[in-house]
Amino acid sequence: MKNIIGREIPAEYQGMKFKPFSGAFEFVPKGSKYSPALKVSKPGDKKVRKNLREALIAAGIKDGSSISFHHHLRNGDYIINMAMDEIASMGIKNIRFIPTALFGVHKKIIEHIKTGVIGKISGSLNGPVGRFVSDGNLKYPVFLRSHGGRARAIESGDETIDIAIIAAPTCDEFGTILSSVGQSACGPLGYAVTDSQYARQVIAVTDNLVPFPAKKELISYNHIDHIVVVDKIGNPGGIVSGTTVVTRDTLRLKIGHYASKVIEHSGLLIDDVSFQTGAGGASLAAAEFVKNIMLEKKITGSFASGGITGLLVDMYNKGLFKKLLDVQSFDLEAVASYRDNPDHIGISASEYANPHTSGCIVNQLDCVLLGATEVDLNFNVNVNTEVDGALLHGIGGHQDTAAGAKMTVIVAPQFRGNIPLVVDDVTTVTTPGETVDVLVTERGVAVNPRRGDLLERFKKCRDLPVKSIEEIREESIKLVGKPEPIEYEDDIIGIIEYRDGSIIDVVRKVIDKKK
Amino acid sequence: MKNIIGREIPAEYQGMKFKPFSGAFEFVPKGSKYSPALKVSKPGDKKVRKNLREALIAAGIKDGSSISFHHHLRNGDYIINMAMDEIASMGIKNIRFIPTALFGVHKKIIEHIKTGVIGKISGSLNGPVGRFVSDGNLKYPVFLRSHGGRARAIESGDETIDIAIIAAPTCDEFGTILSSVGQSACGPLGYAVTDSQYARQVIAVTDNLVPFPAKKELISYNHIDHIVVVDKIGNPGGIVSGTTVVTRDTLRLKIGHYASKVIEHSGLLIDDVSFQTGAGGASLAAAEFVKNIMLEKKITGSFASGGITGLLVDMYNKGLFKKLLDVQSFDLEAVASYRDNPDHIGISASEYANPHTSGCIVNQLDCVLLGATEVDLNFNVNVNTEVDGALLHGIGGHQDTAAGAKMTVIVAPQFRGNIPLVVDDVTTVTTPGETVDVLVTERGVAVNPRRGDLLERFKKCRDLPVKSIEEIREESIKLVGKPEPIEYEDDIIGIIEYRDGSIIDVVRKVIDKKK
Repeated sequence: MKNIIGREIPAEYQGMKFKPFSGAFEFVPKGSKYSPALKVSKPGDKKVRKNLREALIAAGIKDGSSISFHHHLRNGDYIINMAMDEIASMGIKNIRFIPTALFGVHKKIIEHIKTGVIGKISGSLNGPVGRFVSDGNLKYPVFLRSHGGRARAIESGDETIDIAIIAAPTCDEFGTILSSVGQSACGPLGYAVTDSQYARQVIAVTDNLVPFPAKKELISYNHIDHIVVVDKIGNPGGIVSGTTVVTRDTLRLKIGHYASKVIEHSGLLIDDVSFQTGAGGASLAAAEFVKNIMLEKKITGSFASGGITGLLVDMYNKGLFKKLLDVQSFDLEAVASYRDNPDHIGISASEYANPHTSGCIVNQLDCVLLGATEVDLNFNVNVNTEVDGALLHGIGGHQDTAAGAKMTVIVAPQFRGNIPLVVDDVTTVTTPGETVDVLVTERGVAVNPRRGDLLERFKKCRDLPVKSIEEIREESIKLVGKPEPIEYEDDIIGIIEYRDGSIIDVVRKVIDKKK
Repeated sequence: MKNIIGREIPAEYQGMKFKPFSGAFEFVPKGSKYSPALKVSKPGDKKVRKNLREALIAAGIKDGSSISFHHHLRNGDYIINMAMDEIASMGIKNIRFIPTALFGVHKKIIEHIKTGVIGKISGSLNGPVGRFVSDGNLKYPVFLRSHGGRARAIESGDETIDIAIIAAPTCDEFGTILSSVGQSACGPLGYAVTDSQYARQVIAVTDNLVPFPAKKELISYNHIDHIVVVDKIGNPGGIVSGTTVVTRDTLRLKIGHYASKVIEHSGLLIDDVSFQTGAGGASLAAAEFVKNIMLEKKITGSFASGGITGLLVDMYNKGLFKKLLDVQSFDLEAVASYRDNPDHIGISASEYANPHTSGCIVNQLDCVLLGATEVDLNFNVNVNTEVDGALLHGIGGHQDTAAGAKMTVIVAPQFRGNIPLVVDDVTTVTTPGETVDVLVTERGVAVNPRRGDLLERFKKCRDLPVKSIEEIREESIKLVGKPEPIEYEDDIIGIIEYRDGSIIDVVRKVIDKKK
């Protein structure tokens, strides 16, 4: 069957039934949240286990268990590899592996897929593991969800977790977790909160055990069953993803400049503006320009949210925002700010972006800047698959912030090598065009026809090269030609879930023409 | 049927089935938590309603709805009366009324019972409403639960809430609730947290609406559906219950002195001791003596928990505790400390005392001081019914802290008028004797035979009048005689639930001999 944006979705696949995407705000959930198991605790109960194996045994691990992780230590994380190695050494097979994201450092997960320790994956597969799965090396398709969608899936019971393993930069002996302090401090553990509340058993792994009571940040002793102390949970230097420094690349500076003008002229850049940006080069460049406009015009914003970077901390410090709402710190400046600044507030993934709650932060956003691998004529955006069709990137907060913000601006170079950004149809729809308002490249600014109001505003600005998205498309083809279409097998390697639990697209295996 | 401590409990009453109490730590819950309804929110959704009636209508109130309240504004609360008056004026009947506690200021609730607006009650009935219900004026028995037991009941689905109404000293426009600031600041809203998470709909009523985003304390916008602004939610002066000033009464000072010696000689009063005390005269006197011992011996405790008083704040300020873990502030000194001191930490009722979680604070307690109306030869304690059999007091944290603490000390005068404290069998069992270690009166210190270790220690102290509880009983009878036994009808007016959800006792209607 086709979903509402024309993507072919199987009604059923490998026994799983799918609900097709029907529009960003169409689905109204019925029924109740998932009900996690009741627990019991007594005076004198101890939580600290001898080692990870003992904790896993105490948590009841067995073949087929679902195990979740979070990625706040990013490319500096030691815990996913440590835990999966331990699970492998215990002879456990067929784990449902539920990370929030993977990085290059998690390459050895490939071995655990090969040997059948990991049987299914639900989570972003950034980098080498994504490449391996894209080659058809996992029997079941990977489920990709946005940060808000993952919280929703866990709270609704679409994704159930047997054991959540939480990398805890500091943990007291009763299980209070702090991530602002400790040798591996990494900023708020926003993505791990839902896991701690809904998993059948929760293991905290820490390299800084402190006496009870520590002051709770986001995760309470109320939910922690086992504590394991290790030498190091990670290398906080690895938190910096390398993309959070403002670019000197003239192309991205140009995109950033246009994007900042789009924001300036949108009517949103006034006192109490709220703002989010990713850590991509063009986004950060745009934020730097926005900063200067706000300083010049003496605008005081309300909040910046999302993955917080040093740049947003700098804007806060200059008085441009009153609060930083942080689900994950992107660099060590943000980590330090979370530790020192009471206005730098940690939020859970559910508070950040879960649409099936009484309210989430993205719904309060004025403006978000997001990247793209492809954008199509309907403003649908692909961030998941590469130009060769491989599934290499997660959704992150892309769907969530696009749906929530009053204005969603996609910033991306018009070409990657000789591959155009704007295509007739994106390879994979991550984020539906109805939630995308503006595309900014180094050569043009295209406005979604749904937003005639913005188009009118931008047309008045001489410094903005306003074009239709079709014009950008044609101009691109003239310059680099049309790329060869990718051919696919029928096998599905990835399911792209929309944040509401419906299926917005599937990723099929690319036909290997070398064979 | 009789439960394990010999109390006659009906297996069934008015269609409700009861699980008899089987020991403080015997019941292991099976199954899952209650699953509250999924919600949905969209960008642009507004939460502020015109008035309370509009919010109640939006929340779907109807005949038979269950409505919960919390008592952090204590005798200064305006919200319960305001909301119940509004509900009455809407013509709604047969509400299941679920307050955490009631005070004298809530006397007019009696009218709503008389007119059928309130049909059932689940919650503590302190004061005039308790007297009214004790006279048999409610068709269904009242359910009494401890603070931890109430959180457990809500989380397990034993008690379901249609609409939670939260008195919010400060609320931002998106529903973030703060209670440390605002004209009606009242300390942490510990008892309202579970309600906010599990109610079908949640209404915040505030007299201080602020712009989003405010910094979250215990209750998140994630759970708030409607916001109502009123002139005043309460009179913070009424928070002070009048019992939190250290007594000058020589009898209570004597009890306090003995209790402090019990603590001193228990072996628990060493560095990192944790401590809780209620706000009764003898308890506060004991805390004052303990303070002086700690100062003298240079002991630094770990934490004090529970309802926090100015006395505990003073002990913190003198360096005697590292943290204050606060579920409810008992006076304005505590309210100010919660606002100003980062080590004064708000906790939810579930974090405080819910036994069916991965851990709660009471399990970490070394020593708690608690009051009593009656104590029997098995060390069972009654705090619910008065000497005339009327149900006038709630359970509070009595069951919870007694179960959790390493040493539970009951402090109470040996006589109230000519009524002895120690009886053969308490009128009502609130807290089972197996969780009570020591009784301290102005004339004696009795140790539960289960605690031979403590008895040995106390016998060595010349300044402690150690007696058996039977000796105290006999001495009391010699002095004032045996009181006339109360005679009861078959009708049950109250159910005393143990914190694990089993029934520890029932309260029957006293035969009115005047009739």
